[in-house]
Amino acid sequence: MRAYDLIRKKRDGGALTGEELGFIVRGATSGEIADEQLAAFLMAVFFRGLDVKTELPQWLQAMLHSGEVLDLSRIAGRKVDKHSTGGVGDKISIPLAPLAAVCGVRVPMVSGRGLGHTGGTLDKLESIPGFRVDLPVERFIDLVDRLGVCLIGQTARIAPADRKLYALRDATATVESVPLIASSILSKKLAEGIDALVLDVKVGRGAFMKTAGEARLLARTMVDLCRSLGRDCVALLTAMDAPLGNAIGNAVEVRESIDVLRNAGPPDVRELTLLLGVEMLRLCGVDAAEARSRLEAALASGSALRRFAEVIDAQGGDARVLDDPGRLPQPRCRREVRASRSGVLTGLDAQEVGLAAVELGAGRARREDAVDPAAGLLLRKRVGEEVRAGEPLADLHAASEGRLDAGEARWHAAVTIGDVPPAAAPLVLERLA
Amino acid sequence: MRAYDLIRKKRDGGALTGEELGFIVRGATSGEIADEQLAAFLMAVFFRGLDVKTELPQWLQAMLHSGEVLDLSRIAGRKVDKHSTGGVGDKISIPLAPLAAVCGVRVPMVSGRGLGHTGGTLDKLESIPGFRVDLPVERFIDLVDRLGVCLIGQTARIAPADRKLYALRDATATVESVPLIASSILSKKLAEGIDALVLDVKVGRGAFMKTAGEARLLARTMVDLCRSLGRDCVALLTAMDAPLGNAIGNAVEVRESIDVLRNAGPPDVRELTLLLGVEMLRLCGVDAAEARSRLEAALASGSALRRFAEVIDAQGGDARVLDDPGRLPQPRCRREVRASRSGVLTGLDAQEVGLAAVELGAGRARREDAVDPAAGLLLRKRVGEEVRAGEPLADLHAASEGRLDAGEARWHAAVTIGDVPPAAAPLVLERLA
Repeated sequence: MRAYDLIRKKRDGGALTGEELGFIVRGATSGEIADEQLAAFLMAVFFRGLDVKTELPQWLQAMLHSGEVLDLSRIAGRKVDKHSTGGVGDKISIPLAPLAAVCGVRVPMVSGRGLGHTGGTLDKLESIPGFRVDLPVERFIDLVDRLGVCLIGQTARIAPADRKLYALRDATATVESVPLIASSILSKKLAEGIDALVLDVKVGRGAFMKTAGEARLLARTMVDLCRSLGRDCVALLTAMDAPLGNAIGNAVEVRESIDVLRNAGPPDVRELTLLLGVEMLRLCGVDAAEARSRLEAALASGSALRRFAEVIDAQGGDARVLDDPGRLPQPRCRREVRASRSGVLTGLDAQEVGLAAVELGAGRARREDAVDPAAGLLLRKRVGEEVRAGEPLADLHAASEGRLDAGEARWHAAVTIGDVPPAAAPLVLERLA
Repeated sequence: MRAYDLIRKKRDGGALTGEELGFIVRGATSGEIADEQLAAFLMAVFFRGLDVKTELPQWLQAMLHSGEVLDLSRIAGRKVDKHSTGGVGDKISIPLAPLAAVCGVRVPMVSGRGLGHTGGTLDKLESIPGFRVDLPVERFIDLVDRLGVCLIGQTARIAPADRKLYALRDATATVESVPLIASSILSKKLAEGIDALVLDVKVGRGAFMKTAGEARLLARTMVDLCRSLGRDCVALLTAMDAPLGNAIGNAVEVRESIDVLRNAGPPDVRELTLLLGVEMLRLCGVDAAEARSRLEAALASGSALRRFAEVIDAQGGDARVLDDPGRLPQPRCRREVRASRSGVLTGLDAQEVGLAAVELGAGRARREDAVDPAAGLLLRKRVGEEVRAGEPLADLHAASEGRLDAGEARWHAAVTIGDVPPAAAPLVLERLA
């Protein structure tokens, strides 16, 4: 078999066999297929796709088995993870993981880092002093068993084909391909050894998918693909035009997550945490109403917060941050940004807010950049609220005045003040199962 | 400017500016753009094309100027080259170059080597003992000035961007793209410093372009592209279902070329040489009828043959081969292949015959292979002729019995014997100017 012939076949719209797809994935992993051939293949897939019924399940199987597949069979109960396609201010994994765990779900959660305008759960967790996301696999399995939850980063042994192909896609403008996105996400998630997956597919200006149509296609593809590999999957399409919650950054988002676990926090963050938690419990066979009341009770009783304390402690972090958030990294410089006119806050472009956070130091423009755990924004006004000229709209946090200047410049591009309040946008656009 | 953004723009169907196209060509030449990015760009061009009016002339300009562009301005008269897209038994350049030169055309001919089922002029010329195709540029210009003709190979200094991109296209299944083919051919040809070009675009089973439609599109693109860079260009679409002439190989094709220059040779080779010669003379302002009679006279008088003797001598070769073809490399082994049944020879698949020649040692399966100058085939029967069972159809030449076995196996796949004589196929399908 030659890579050339397979590139040509896909280029001409042919359907590749499982053997052929496996050849490419193995060649990518081992380095036996040259980068330029893989890049040409990926661009051909961008144009021709991979058939959802025949090619994609085989491609995913090969990606999934390019490295280690965790065996969680010794852990009793349903293992369910949640994955978000990435947004701005999306800290849901942090309150959701211990909350779902305390309600009986086993949550083996492997998360990612922030890139571009979107943040990453690992960066946020690492703002907790001492918190380790690089635990050995054995320790990870042990904590999922003991606490019902552990949050780590992708290991080098999980889905190495995806790591290779993702780096190439990132360099060759072949990221935006539904079959490639779906198989990339699922190869990593299914290698965790989960039984079922809840997907939060973001839609809007701050999301990867700008329209509900694109998001629906991705969600449908992933749900069907999971099904064809024998895993349950439910997807929610959720709004990402404006940031989620009030905090955008790392330490500030941990703090907001703690608020939610304290049965408070911004209503949208609390509600989305509950809605995704309901889906995780439903995938464990719990009825929706029962799920909702269990989750609300776990927030109200403080049991979810206590479980998070145990997780922080078990992963090497300082759990005292829960009672004393001053122990989280604090910014050297702060600045209030104010409304330029009176009116109604009609728009807060999530992508621009995310890029402002990057300018402040909270995110990464390039993969190799370091993040500043203390940098970020705290919104004082939400979309739809009235504002007066000169009234503070947000607090910016950064390590220097220069960073604040850069962040503020970007911030202004995010804000729209008008005269007519916008129609209230729903948090969840659609549910696919 | 970032390669990523340009790949993305082309991927999404955008038109690149001259500056952007130049950035890619320069990055390919210098190595500053990674191979995987170039490969993804080439595949995006495969799907999206390059606009013939806006993008392609700028792309070609950048390719052409990626290296040295010869200055032939000190040579008086019109400099005209002929280029064939490649066929089986296509030795036309060898008789045509000295013939056109003796009729007043200046012929700075830069040729290529054989690859796959097609032969190459350089390999054929090198079967003449001592013949050098790697002359220094100064010597090349001097010979075009003095003899009106010189035949060399591409130098490392001419169109290095094309060498880089062609190697990538060859590895990534992006060869079959009309704008990429057109710009690849023309970047090398126009860098020779020519005023005009005659294109022989082959059509059929032994050609790169299998249908007249594809060939016409390529021819039209190249003619228009030459025009937009201020060069004249005429294209003939010619038949390549069966091999051209009776000889397929290297020394055997030189011998057949000499026959043509002796005013003999197979009618199809003679006729195509004359037709392409007429086009070259017309591009020098000579009327078609006058051109034909000058060319026929130069064959009849032996002046074209004498000019070829001077060329061979000037390029270090042994011109005695013209009178004593036994001085050309002789095969160690020969074998007659015979008709399996009586009937009419209805087909002789040029591609299969070309692959039989490769098996005999006359061609290259891979770029790094060496060719055997003495290997090849001599046809005894042409398509349309009656054959009797057991009658010899061809002589195979090779260095070993093993090679003969391999060549004979392939040969049989090329031959079709039927009962009804096929309709006579025209040599020239179309002329585009």
